[in-house]
Amino acid sequence: MDDRTYTADAEPGDTVTVAGWVHEIRDLGGIAFLILRDTTGKIQVKFEKDEMDEDLVDTGLDVQRESVISVTGDVEEEPRAPTGVEVTPESVDVVSEADPELPLDPSGKVDAELPTRLDNRTLDLRKDEVKAIFEIRAEVLRSVREAFRELGSTEINTPKIVATGTEGGTELFPITYFGREAFMNQSPQLFKQLMVGSGLERVFEIGPIFRAEEHNTPRHLNEATSIDFESAFYDHTEAMDACEHVVKAAYEGVAQNCAEELEALGLEDDFSAPEGEFPRLTYQEAIDKINAAGELDEPLVWGDDLSTEAEHVLGEEVGEHYFITDWPSEIKPFYIKDHDDDEDVSTGFDMMHPSMELVSGGQREHRYDRLVAGFEQQGLDPEAFEYYTKMFRYGMPPHAGWGLGGERLVMTMLGLENIREAVLFPRDRQRLSP
Amino acid sequence: MDDRTYTADAEPGDTVTVAGWVHEIRDLGGIAFLILRDTTGKIQVKFEKDEMDEDLVDTGLDVQRESVISVTGDVEEEPRAPTGVEVTPESVDVVSEADPELPLDPSGKVDAELPTRLDNRTLDLRKDEVKAIFEIRAEVLRSVREAFRELGSTEINTPKIVATGTEGGTELFPITYFGREAFMNQSPQLFKQLMVGSGLERVFEIGPIFRAEEHNTPRHLNEATSIDFESAFYDHTEAMDACEHVVKAAYEGVAQNCAEELEALGLEDDFSAPEGEFPRLTYQEAIDKINAAGELDEPLVWGDDLSTEAEHVLGEEVGEHYFITDWPSEIKPFYIKDHDDDEDVSTGFDMMHPSMELVSGGQREHRYDRLVAGFEQQGLDPEAFEYYTKMFRYGMPPHAGWGLGGERLVMTMLGLENIREAVLFPRDRQRLSP
Repeated sequence: MDDRTYTADAEPGDTVTVAGWVHEIRDLGGIAFLILRDTTGKIQVKFEKDEMDEDLVDTGLDVQRESVISVTGDVEEEPRAPTGVEVTPESVDVVSEADPELPLDPSGKVDAELPTRLDNRTLDLRKDEVKAIFEIRAEVLRSVREAFRELGSTEINTPKIVATGTEGGTELFPITYFGREAFMNQSPQLFKQLMVGSGLERVFEIGPIFRAEEHNTPRHLNEATSIDFESAFYDHTEAMDACEHVVKAAYEGVAQNCAEELEALGLEDDFSAPEGEFPRLTYQEAIDKINAAGELDEPLVWGDDLSTEAEHVLGEEVGEHYFITDWPSEIKPFYIKDHDDDEDVSTGFDMMHPSMELVSGGQREHRYDRLVAGFEQQGLDPEAFEYYTKMFRYGMPPHAGWGLGGERLVMTMLGLENIREAVLFPRDRQRLSP
Repeated sequence: MDDRTYTADAEPGDTVTVAGWVHEIRDLGGIAFLILRDTTGKIQVKFEKDEMDEDLVDTGLDVQRESVISVTGDVEEEPRAPTGVEVTPESVDVVSEADPELPLDPSGKVDAELPTRLDNRTLDLRKDEVKAIFEIRAEVLRSVREAFRELGSTEINTPKIVATGTEGGTELFPITYFGREAFMNQSPQLFKQLMVGSGLERVFEIGPIFRAEEHNTPRHLNEATSIDFESAFYDHTEAMDACEHVVKAAYEGVAQNCAEELEALGLEDDFSAPEGEFPRLTYQEAIDKINAAGELDEPLVWGDDLSTEAEHVLGEEVGEHYFITDWPSEIKPFYIKDHDDDEDVSTGFDMMHPSMELVSGGQREHRYDRLVAGFEQQGLDPEAFEYYTKMFRYGMPPHAGWGLGGERLVMTMLGLENIREAVLFPRDRQRLSP
């Protein structure tokens, strides 16, 4: 069935069958043009009313916009046509007729609000600039996986239905699992750690995570794509090196392979892969810089988390991608290891983009006694996590890793205003369908 | 921290630091050998008791098996050592001490039952033959994604939390989603179809699916990895071509890139990529063949589903990979298109391995009226699926696709007896942890 010629491949002198969507019909009286669109581009189909079969002309010009049609005819050069060629049709078949009223205009002439776009993603992704986001997203995933393999890590898949969550119960979606209580996994954290103690040693996973947070912001999702990495015998500095490698690879992959998509987004002149090392500031240096800028109502003190406003101030000072290291232990999760020479300072790090946190990571606590104590301090029952903690009694190497928000990476890379633009079918407090 | 030398890279003449797990200690009296294992292999460490520092010898020989240690020393040729070289240690550090009692023996000398192995995956994956399964699984995913890109398809991610299921309510896990009823997705079917009507046209997804089926067999999972493909302007025959391309690519990737892993599994002489076209039998031909074999108690008649026994009989006759096409419409889902010239026969197909179904696919019903009628015949409320059906009113092209069980592909490729062996942390009716 798909023996059609893509519109981008139609060359003057060919007789082709092209098939796709009716993008536009321009009727100039004696002559009319139908613009046919497929995944590779657009092509002009010419109807000369007095010289062509009347049925053919009627079929071609009476069809509703966004219907699927198939056109067979000769391709000729035509400098005035948008792509320099046009098809003179011998036959036109209407394959799938569209309703005259569309909920969204794929030609982009009429703007649509985000909720309308998300309700009608099929039509929304007929626009070049929306399709481009998802072609780029796919390239990001491809190049990230390749970068992980360059680092010698093995792809794993860990369960999304779990008996316990990492950070306590409030942020978990409960499931009924054959009459038992279970949850949707909020992070592969515990499972990827279990694998660094196995013969794999270094692993990555790209998969969905689920967080029942009642956020309603342009940068939070309740279902997101997490890009996770974990390696035996790495400390936090090596984990940061790996993070930098992977993020740069994503930018480089897009720069190399998505020229057309960047152009559709108007980014062809502004897009470049980050160069040089990402700056690494300690938390203390970060709050000093923020306080020195003098823009916050109250200066930050050791132990404060960084507000969105504080992150913005810092981003102005430091640039696009940078690490904040050596966070106070008290505001990092218990599974992050503290520095051996100062237990108040953790090996946790965040990788920031001016407007938000992209990555969170650190060296992990691999010492059984301290890990179990950490669960207790967190108010979690270590027994419920025994499947995890007990493996730390059988030779768990030191290890470090991180998680990177896939949608946040795409969002910041392309300067999208809302994270939902980077997800085909986003999930938030209100949105469960489509 | 990971400035160690991998055991596989230690060359005679080098001074190295190797780190990994204590695989074995052989004490021969005046001389003793410690075998150190890391992700790349094993290396022998020699202790000459009378010639070495006593503390060093004690540290090296008193350490529990499966502890993590780090050894610095000179590498020398030693033909009697398992890998032809050995390290004479200058220092030995115990990085992470293991308990003396292990729930599972990673040296493989003592066999463990599958439940014990699944409870202790960290230790289980220290065995070469178990690690090999997951290295091969990762290679399967890599080569499958590459094959999809060769077919010009774009990777997508669709939601795992959904408002409605494709096949009715009984096989769905319910979730509480901000006080509303929702479900875990049992298939990306509806979402991938929505994307073939978009500018992407041809898409793939590899992700988790969730089925609340009360199966308890060696080939069913309640959480599995689905490899999905869907293309605009494809019919069922082209979808089968694409399926064959992808499955062969998985075998070829493993054949080319996993020699060591196949050896660990004892498959180095038996493994080869399928050659030639996969045979395509109609359902009628299939039941005729099964009946002719005369092994079933009762002959099959048109409309019967194929039992496991029937599949086995057919597999004996036809071979490793083959398609069964032209199934009775009544036993295929309503979204599968019927043949235009015979509404009792569908375009649905299955791709079989002798022991089980690997792939299910077909051309889809893209005509709005018939699709809505299909929902009604299935006893589903078309209004609940309006987010999906309404897109069929705005120019939905003819399309076809399929879903391939990722674990079943690995299981049949490697001849595993239980599908749980192909999953790090399987989920079934009983197993929810780890």
